[in-house]
Amino acid sequence: MKWVYIEDIAAFKDLDVEVRGWVYGKRSSGKVRFLLIRDGTGILQATVFSGDENHPLFKAFDELTQESSLIVRGRVREDKRAPGGYELGLQDIEILQIAKDYPITPKEHTTPFLMEHRHLWLRSRKQHAVLQVRVEVIKAIRNFFDDRGFRLMDTPILTPSACEGTTTLFETKYFDQMAYLSQSGQLYNEATAAAFGKVYCFGPAFRAEKSKTRRHLIEFWMVEPEVAFATLEDTIELGQDLLMFIIERVLTKRRQDLEELERDPKPLEAITKPFPRITYDEIVPKLQEKGSAIQYGGDFGAPEESLISELSTNPVCITHFPAKIKAFYMQPDKDRPDLALGVDFMAPESYGEIIGGGQRIHDLNLLEQRIQEQHLPREAYEWYLDLRKYGSVPHAGFGLGVERTVSWMCRIKHIRETIPFPRLLYRIYP
Amino acid sequence: MKWVYIEDIAAFKDLDVEVRGWVYGKRSSGKVRFLLIRDGTGILQATVFSGDENHPLFKAFDELTQESSLIVRGRVREDKRAPGGYELGLQDIEILQIAKDYPITPKEHTTPFLMEHRHLWLRSRKQHAVLQVRVEVIKAIRNFFDDRGFRLMDTPILTPSACEGTTTLFETKYFDQMAYLSQSGQLYNEATAAAFGKVYCFGPAFRAEKSKTRRHLIEFWMVEPEVAFATLEDTIELGQDLLMFIIERVLTKRRQDLEELERDPKPLEAITKPFPRITYDEIVPKLQEKGSAIQYGGDFGAPEESLISELSTNPVCITHFPAKIKAFYMQPDKDRPDLALGVDFMAPESYGEIIGGGQRIHDLNLLEQRIQEQHLPREAYEWYLDLRKYGSVPHAGFGLGVERTVSWMCRIKHIRETIPFPRLLYRIYP
Repeated sequence: MKWVYIEDIAAFKDLDVEVRGWVYGKRSSGKVRFLLIRDGTGILQATVFSGDENHPLFKAFDELTQESSLIVRGRVREDKRAPGGYELGLQDIEILQIAKDYPITPKEHTTPFLMEHRHLWLRSRKQHAVLQVRVEVIKAIRNFFDDRGFRLMDTPILTPSACEGTTTLFETKYFDQMAYLSQSGQLYNEATAAAFGKVYCFGPAFRAEKSKTRRHLIEFWMVEPEVAFATLEDTIELGQDLLMFIIERVLTKRRQDLEELERDPKPLEAITKPFPRITYDEIVPKLQEKGSAIQYGGDFGAPEESLISELSTNPVCITHFPAKIKAFYMQPDKDRPDLALGVDFMAPESYGEIIGGGQRIHDLNLLEQRIQEQHLPREAYEWYLDLRKYGSVPHAGFGLGVERTVSWMCRIKHIRETIPFPRLLYRIYP
Repeated sequence: MKWVYIEDIAAFKDLDVEVRGWVYGKRSSGKVRFLLIRDGTGILQATVFSGDENHPLFKAFDELTQESSLIVRGRVREDKRAPGGYELGLQDIEILQIAKDYPITPKEHTTPFLMEHRHLWLRSRKQHAVLQVRVEVIKAIRNFFDDRGFRLMDTPILTPSACEGTTTLFETKYFDQMAYLSQSGQLYNEATAAAFGKVYCFGPAFRAEKSKTRRHLIEFWMVEPEVAFATLEDTIELGQDLLMFIIERVLTKRRQDLEELERDPKPLEAITKPFPRITYDEIVPKLQEKGSAIQYGGDFGAPEESLISELSTNPVCITHFPAKIKAFYMQPDKDRPDLALGVDFMAPESYGEIIGGGQRIHDLNLLEQRIQEQHLPREAYEWYLDLRKYGSVPHAGFGLGVERTVSWMCRIKHIRETIPFPRLLYRIYP
């Protein structure tokens, strides 16, 4: 008998198949026994009907506990009442292992307990749905860039110096020297963009921040495109197109998961291009008017993120930040050199910054000056300065955080559920 | 005028376009000037023809040096003599920056010099071709697994314990405890496979090995599929299909790059399924006969890899290793419990092991025994043991090293050229 996955079951209507999986639930109703089986791709209802209380399948059914592993065989039937529209008429139950005292029960558990059992928690319906959305978001990102001719250029994790300050870096001994875990592949992207035109890197990034918020992970995944000859304007366009593509994909392919998560799709469906834009200079007084305590030059916190969400049902692009609050490599505005040509995309529904990027300095002298002003070790940046010596061109790019995007798509509270094994302050198990 | 990429130029035949890039080379021949421009997606020949020695474009042409950045405009013409079959009739040259004394010249450079200038070396034709093959290999791997319903489940880089011994681990302070950089996502894959059925992880892995061979990188990328209910047999099938898929893709899509690298495609074209299989017990005496100094229980070194290459023009699958030389989690053979149900795929042309995998222990008692025998800290493996308590099922998977595969596809000597910024023993710059 053919082993099939539950997500493919519709193709086997009226045929005998084998399904391999785990017991998700069961119930009896008179002469019928209902078994819910999950195989990782879906949940299938399998039934036995018999007037004989001693039916051998009833005995096997009675033995089964939550998460017991088994192989079942039977005929696929269309049945509108069954979850997913199909059910299996059970002919055979082969028990592989009876699970005893599975720790995650339908009752409420505390978060620390669930995090301690993350390896099992992943099997539950809600976590499964969130991670299915994650799979789709990542696939959408890769398809978006691959289809537009971007070259994936992996940037190193072990780096000799810091991209944005050293206080939040993990360090490790690298033979006879020290190395730091990368917080961003951007500087390296600038080198590969000059070699390949349009590039992206997509990998884990690390921030040793001692902050415990619902938005922060110590280890997270980030995609960072970089385009030679691109400007701030181009990078805003690209970010906008990427977000529209991701939303469209999630709405098309993962609608069932959104339902499972009770995520109202309407706010996502309402998003349209172009996204509204506002400069930092314009938004600060607006936020102050609405009661925010933000000062000029300050960063946006949770209260500001909520207030920005009220400005539009679309993501909001904030541009032209004070240069001194942004990284050393940001290109200044031609007419207002105190402003940096950066952009932050703020997600709707108070999900905060999901994209940060902008145009980079391509003038050698200016970059040298910035490195000096910020007391960065010049020798570590020699290669980066080379990019401005040998055929320098304007270029721009951004970073999008995968887990923040998934949180927003799923409208879940805490980012820790958007990655299989979250790394949080003081938490590294399992 | 429309900015187009060189790889798309054929679509703009007889039209006026703009190309943005860098000078790759130039030459004069009587009244004609030939400019080779690279934009990261290809190399285009642009020409000016004039009887007037003082033609303004001739003056601009004379100024240009290797890697100078520029924007050119002109009409696309079909010309069979031009590289790629198209050339640009130059109407305008806009110089962005004249590059002075570009360090990488057509003359021979030493490897340490090129590695020190890796950020620029990436722009040269051969390095470009190798990394284009890398892009294709990675895309092929993702497509292969995505199309077969595998879920990408990212596994953590920062881990509390070692998968295969602690001597080759990078360690870092993780708040109040220690963390280690992952060498493999496999153990975590086993948890996600029980939740999602078919999974893969694909990320960087780290080995702090003090070895300096042409096969080793300190930081490398690895794809690792894991399938619940799969056996050694299934995992050999899967590895075989994956390799056939990658080869087919590289041969179809990157033939030009292979040519650039002077890589004879015939050995790749000759590969067919099924791959020959041989057990460890069978191959050791064969190798000894052919002059290898290998002892029973020993690992394959470079001489053995060459000898194995002589056995077949296909990759060779070696199975059933002595359990004691393999990892603690390997499932023993039913009839010969001293043998492990593992498989190594040895690439042809002496490229050595590119896939390693097998079936994992699913019996709780046996796994507990192995953890004890190998003096592993049980508390670190509690979650891993849980997978054998709650619905344990047979499962199998493997790991494929991206850079080794790319080396083989390109038939290049040293693995360091297969990743944008290689991390080698004592080398972490740029």
